[in-house]
Amino acid sequence: MAKELKDVTKAEDNYSQWYNDLVVKAGLAENSAVRGCMVIKPYGYAIWEKMQATLDKMFKETGHENAYFPLFIPKSFFSKEASHVEGFAKECAVVTHYRLKNDPDGKGVVVDPDAKLEEELIVRPTSETIIWNTYKGWIQSYRDLPILCNQWANVVRWEMRTRLFLRTAEFLWQEGHTAHATQEEAIEEATRMIHVYEKFAEEWMSLPVIVGHKSPNERFAGAVDTLTIEALMQDGKALQSGTSHFLGQNFAKAFDVQYLNKEGKLEYVWATSWGVSTRLMGALIMAHSDNNGLVLPPKLAPIQVVMIPIYRGEEQMQTIVAKLREMADELRARGISVKIDDRDNVRSGFKFADYELKGIPVRLALGPRDLENGTIELMRRDTLAKEVVPQEGLTDRVVALMEDIQQNIYRKALEFRNSMITKVDTWEEFLDVLENKGGFISAHWDGTVETEVAIKEATKATIRCIPFDAPEEEGRCVFSGKPSHRRVLFARSY
Amino acid sequence: MAKELKDVTKAEDNYSQWYNDLVVKAGLAENSAVRGCMVIKPYGYAIWEKMQATLDKMFKETGHENAYFPLFIPKSFFSKEASHVEGFAKECAVVTHYRLKNDPDGKGVVVDPDAKLEEELIVRPTSETIIWNTYKGWIQSYRDLPILCNQWANVVRWEMRTRLFLRTAEFLWQEGHTAHATQEEAIEEATRMIHVYEKFAEEWMSLPVIVGHKSPNERFAGAVDTLTIEALMQDGKALQSGTSHFLGQNFAKAFDVQYLNKEGKLEYVWATSWGVSTRLMGALIMAHSDNNGLVLPPKLAPIQVVMIPIYRGEEQMQTIVAKLREMADELRARGISVKIDDRDNVRSGFKFADYELKGIPVRLALGPRDLENGTIELMRRDTLAKEVVPQEGLTDRVVALMEDIQQNIYRKALEFRNSMITKVDTWEEFLDVLENKGGFISAHWDGTVETEVAIKEATKATIRCIPFDAPEEEGRCVFSGKPSHRRVLFARSY
Repeated sequence: MAKELKDVTKAEDNYSQWYNDLVVKAGLAENSAVRGCMVIKPYGYAIWEKMQATLDKMFKETGHENAYFPLFIPKSFFSKEASHVEGFAKECAVVTHYRLKNDPDGKGVVVDPDAKLEEELIVRPTSETIIWNTYKGWIQSYRDLPILCNQWANVVRWEMRTRLFLRTAEFLWQEGHTAHATQEEAIEEATRMIHVYEKFAEEWMSLPVIVGHKSPNERFAGAVDTLTIEALMQDGKALQSGTSHFLGQNFAKAFDVQYLNKEGKLEYVWATSWGVSTRLMGALIMAHSDNNGLVLPPKLAPIQVVMIPIYRGEEQMQTIVAKLREMADELRARGISVKIDDRDNVRSGFKFADYELKGIPVRLALGPRDLENGTIELMRRDTLAKEVVPQEGLTDRVVALMEDIQQNIYRKALEFRNSMITKVDTWEEFLDVLENKGGFISAHWDGTVETEVAIKEATKATIRCIPFDAPEEEGRCVFSGKPSHRRVLFARSY
Repeated sequence: MAKELKDVTKAEDNYSQWYNDLVVKAGLAENSAVRGCMVIKPYGYAIWEKMQATLDKMFKETGHENAYFPLFIPKSFFSKEASHVEGFAKECAVVTHYRLKNDPDGKGVVVDPDAKLEEELIVRPTSETIIWNTYKGWIQSYRDLPILCNQWANVVRWEMRTRLFLRTAEFLWQEGHTAHATQEEAIEEATRMIHVYEKFAEEWMSLPVIVGHKSPNERFAGAVDTLTIEALMQDGKALQSGTSHFLGQNFAKAFDVQYLNKEGKLEYVWATSWGVSTRLMGALIMAHSDNNGLVLPPKLAPIQVVMIPIYRGEEQMQTIVAKLREMADELRARGISVKIDDRDNVRSGFKFADYELKGIPVRLALGPRDLENGTIELMRRDTLAKEVVPQEGLTDRVVALMEDIQQNIYRKALEFRNSMITKVDTWEEFLDVLENKGGFISAHWDGTVETEVAIKEATKATIRCIPFDAPEEEGRCVFSGKPSHRRVLFARSY
């Protein structure tokens, strides 16, 4: 087994270190010289590009267009929406000057005190304010609505404790910002987009998610309602993977964006915003990986099949690699991405371990005996099952396997997630499950912020969501004993 | 003619205002509330996306991978490469604090003086420093080379005078950063990439460019050699459209990046960087547009064909739109992007003018008489020529027209550009051509920075490039009279 792989901490020993080892050793990302900012390495970025391309297509199919808004936001903009400023304008990167000059006392450069900005600029932590300030100029009448824009961008939130992909000072994301004539239309849009995220998570990331409303205390700062998709990681902690906000008329009022309706009356515009980020990379890694490394769903794997020649000597190598090239061409013709690793300065054992670490869905190894027998060795990364199969029919087999692996990873995650939703009806049970099992706790809640906050302070568990499909059920709040009409899901989370 | 269009300033009256009017009125971009930062609107962003997709494919075909590096660069990094700091670390956005707090004296938020950064962070104006600091960790031996990374990102240079797309404080770009074992390989890479840009400009943007070396005074800060593609705008000014730099070992030495060569000896790594930006949008607009609006080359037009029904009454409308839908489906099956504008609250005349303004390559208008005759009216945007053509064979005709328009736009720009390269051999001629004709001036230059600077100060003309294909020719410098071995191209530029 390769040295790199040996160094991966086992998940059961230290889950958090295991995660970090995978991210770094599989070549996905690393910390940079700037505190809290990561470098996304080529292999990690290739996965993100696949996510981007898929989501972008889904956004366009639902009628959205991309645009780009400024990186900087004038400080005063944040104060215009009362709850937004509390949530976003605090821990952020502040630009105060626009020039450096040579240090008069020696080497290097210093900030030029004469180049102080009249008003400080904030590096966007999210773009509602600058976008609604822009929309004001775009909207006069109902004919200008809806506006359905999305932006792919970097944002900065000055986090104190950071973790690659999951929580970084700078991260990449998309943020949709839409403007509508009616409340109904805006709510419909926010709902449509959370289902787009759900579909992406389940069908592309093989990640089962629970869709629901956030409780008031967990809402986006400035939203009337926040919808969320919540996933479960293998350590039993939840991970919020995407959110879609119905913003009411809050930002339209803050930036005075009104439109003339069909009756010729002025009304404030209704808004939504919705986003997913490079955090999804963290979810993907944490949900499926094992102690051998990443397990990538084929639909998001930059390399879906790796081929490794097993040989002795130059001549054998050439025959075997030529055969692999033929097979690769056939697979590529079916849309499969294939890499042939014919490096001769690296042992096969190292290659095997390295591609397991990187989560390549299928590995094919061809040796001299296979050549004689018309066979090839096939390993699937999700189960680590190895079998020798005929070369004949290989392409069809691999194409079918892609779908099979995609489904299998999903099924495994779904079974685990479902086994980790526990109904509890007493506070003792609640504490017991939280400490000894983890996962989602389905419990009654009295609907008040006080109870929500008290539970969080006592246990670090929060309401992850009120699921869309939670049935009405009379009960008593697990904490306060007050009446409740439906169960909600609690969990500790990333 | 539509009101919007009437408001477009004529190019001959005020070229600069004409340009700005086109950008704003065609819906490409607008200024934002943040000085010097633009909003790229959906139609403008759709063109940029096509540029991105094409370039990204060309980069990947030449072996490059995408990655992402931090937005922020520690101030001290800039001081490490002596000439780089002079060029880039001066007019830039400086982050000094990481927190705001509620204003104790009233409403709003103020910078928290307790949250001052130990070392200021610079919003990247270009990423050589942070990337070479990262590469240090990636490179040990010759086996780790080459590294061929590209990044799509936003950058900030605090420009005093800004102009949409051409010069903005924040802009979008790609920056390739490669690391090589040998000087030859790095020079080959820098050369390969300037030719990729040349191909993109000529084949996709229909923009003829001259490829060559920059003179020392116009080099990138930190480069040993800068290669450039130079285009000519319709007002006779040049526009640098892309650059590729051979950086020698300058950044490797500044960040101490060495590798063990095959002989086991430590050597500094060789570097290149290369980039194009949203400035290309400015080049595209300025090079081809006319007083009616944009003229987009079909390969970059988000909408290639617009169809407009001409009708009286609901029933006629339905028949005509149904026919257009059939035609649109046929065109789409051939990969043409088509928009049918069947809005009934907007006059056809307004639509015609609006799509001319937006530069849609082909307009098809179908009226009741066409329906009877089996014909359709076709207008091509590049020549504004209108003809009534049979519906039969329309798809083939339009497909062929796409290529024809693409070529024709290029040919027109090339003829203009070639007519605007003037050989001069005296300083009087130089001044005369510069003032009364513009364009590129092909003249002898003695090769010194002093002469280059003196000419720039006297005339605002700079050496745009020393063309790759400039033949050896003995002559005398047009300014100093000293001997020269080849002509270079001077021009005033954007």
